[in-house]
Amino acid sequence: MTDANLYETLRWDAPRDADAADELKCGRLVLIDQTLLPTEFTHVECRTPEEVWRAIKRLVVRGAPAIGIAAAYGVCLGIQPLFADGKTPTRNELLEAVEKTAAYLATSRPTAVNLFWALDRMKARAAASGVSADETAAALMAEAKTIHDEDRGLCRRIGRFGASLVKDGDALLTHCNAGALATADYGTALGVFYAAREAGKKIRVYADETRPLLQGARLTAWELAARGIDVTLICDSMAAMLMRQKKIDAVFVGADRIAANGDVANKIGTYSVAVNARAHGIPFYVAAPFSTFDLTLSDGNQIPIEERDPEEIRRGFGKRTAPDGVKIYNPAFDVTPAELVSGIVTEKGIVSPVTAGQIARLFEK
Amino acid sequence: MTDANLYETLRWDAPRDADAADELKCGRLVLIDQTLLPTEFTHVECRTPEEVWRAIKRLVVRGAPAIGIAAAYGVCLGIQPLFADGKTPTRNELLEAVEKTAAYLATSRPTAVNLFWALDRMKARAAASGVSADETAAALMAEAKTIHDEDRGLCRRIGRFGASLVKDGDALLTHCNAGALATADYGTALGVFYAAREAGKKIRVYADETRPLLQGARLTAWELAARGIDVTLICDSMAAMLMRQKKIDAVFVGADRIAANGDVANKIGTYSVAVNARAHGIPFYVAAPFSTFDLTLSDGNQIPIEERDPEEIRRGFGKRTAPDGVKIYNPAFDVTPAELVSGIVTEKGIVSPVTAGQIARLFEK
Repeated sequence: MTDANLYETLRWDAPRDADAADELKCGRLVLIDQTLLPTEFTHVECRTPEEVWRAIKRLVVRGAPAIGIAAAYGVCLGIQPLFADGKTPTRNELLEAVEKTAAYLATSRPTAVNLFWALDRMKARAAASGVSADETAAALMAEAKTIHDEDRGLCRRIGRFGASLVKDGDALLTHCNAGALATADYGTALGVFYAAREAGKKIRVYADETRPLLQGARLTAWELAARGIDVTLICDSMAAMLMRQKKIDAVFVGADRIAANGDVANKIGTYSVAVNARAHGIPFYVAAPFSTFDLTLSDGNQIPIEERDPEEIRRGFGKRTAPDGVKIYNPAFDVTPAELVSGIVTEKGIVSPVTAGQIARLFEK
Repeated sequence: MTDANLYETLRWDAPRDADAADELKCGRLVLIDQTLLPTEFTHVECRTPEEVWRAIKRLVVRGAPAIGIAAAYGVCLGIQPLFADGKTPTRNELLEAVEKTAAYLATSRPTAVNLFWALDRMKARAAASGVSADETAAALMAEAKTIHDEDRGLCRRIGRFGASLVKDGDALLTHCNAGALATADYGTALGVFYAAREAGKKIRVYADETRPLLQGARLTAWELAARGIDVTLICDSMAAMLMRQKKIDAVFVGADRIAANGDVANKIGTYSVAVNARAHGIPFYVAAPFSTFDLTLSDGNQIPIEERDPEEIRRGFGKRTAPDGVKIYNPAFDVTPAELVSGIVTEKGIVSPVTAGQIARLFEK
């Protein structure tokens, strides 16, 4: 493994001389294990859809765009056994395996819509592919890589659009991790920060630690510091005080699903940040690719919100910190209504004001 | 130790047959070690002012009223050595030791004003006491016990006044721990919940875990569950979502210092809760004794805010969860402006609306 790909959030590992069909037949998905950062930097290898499912569920890989990419590769792993020992599956066997694997991977996490979007792309590509098994394998491998590659490009476009909202000298707040680790690389909300810096703007960033799983402390602080951005870590509850002290100029966060009217599901705690931003007259921006929009949902109330294991709160990172019997509520996401969102930064431009009409217009572009 | 006093937050331990002067000469302060709850229930003994100082600094004892009581007993420990080996100190030696101990204990934590209030009471009592060394010792012992006993009574009065604000069936939110563990017993904000329950009202409580030191998870959840109150633990960042879902009827918190205009310093994160409560039309109440008011400060901007060790955030409770080099900001308190406070529940009644005039009037009672 070279240094360049050591830091890749996701990587499809296959022999260099393989063609696309062979890449699928003998490849494996390699993920940075995000559950162990920042104390350990190791990788997890996935050779089956079950391993991808567990990696998504356990948050080895997380962040809406990265989950989508992982799922696409997971579909490739799902048809791999059909080619074992030089076998050649029938077209029906292949399509069935794609459907079955996609349906299975769709049960890993409910909120980030990029997961379903990527699985739908894989299913459509399989259905449209050539008749031979190798043509289908090559097409699916190509589709997964396209989803992966597209994400790099659109994160950079999101970054450039978003950087136009950042002024030289700004102090910016972010919540959770919408960075390189949540995407192919570069990130959405953090991509805006990287692009602002590349455009010569001096910025400072406050990172909410983001309880309960501390993606802000473990991932965002790690990622920003590694890239030389001035970052200060705070507890989620401290952001309001900083806003009152006029220490925050703008907020940028990512998204896990955006309804047709612009309501945004994102990591739990985002809504509180948005309410506080509004109360202090601070702009609140969401940065996300079009794959995060779910136009089948008219508003955010329809977005399914994942509830996770209470032990994430009870045991934190080490010792038990709450009584064993006590009830715990652990929603992983909340919904911020469109009226609190100053703008949604996409790869096609900035939606502002955030309304169903503005979103529909940008989709038509 | 009997079961009854096992659960006392603070206890002055001395032989049963001792008179007040002897109680001071051979007593020691026993504290529940709140840093180890809920996994370990143990006590810490303090035999010197230095041990009391460290107990306050390390949050073995915390909560504004409890800190004041601990400091009062700490003054007693400061003059104890003057009586060692049957010695009888001069009045000047005694008064000097009181001044010196009080000045020293005042440096333990800066925000909770009850600390300075209790130390001032001890100094005044020493100055006004009889001429003999034993009379002064007895007077100081009595004053510390009076401060301790008064707190029990006023917490119950605060509870009764506050309970009038609670409706049967209410779901109430609290932040940090303003309970039995923060006071002599019973508590201020949690005292309101106990009194509401004693008045036959059925309530449910959501407890913010309260990062970074998790007093809500470790102490409030433990204390409420132990007393049979229906409690659900949440991360601080989840409260806003519950408010939006109309699951919170009112908020009750304690205070560490209240300025003359009603601005309230309390545990970091309180301000965010107050902003969210206002945005959702939910009443936000502060419960605190008069010893928490600091009428020498015209507003909350003048309240000194303690900043604590970044390691509290970086290492949490067990593993390191943030990169070693990264900057961390760790204020222990924030200030909620009076205009966000629906009422302040005191032992003399409820201040509402919260204005300098209303506060002054209640003080004149």
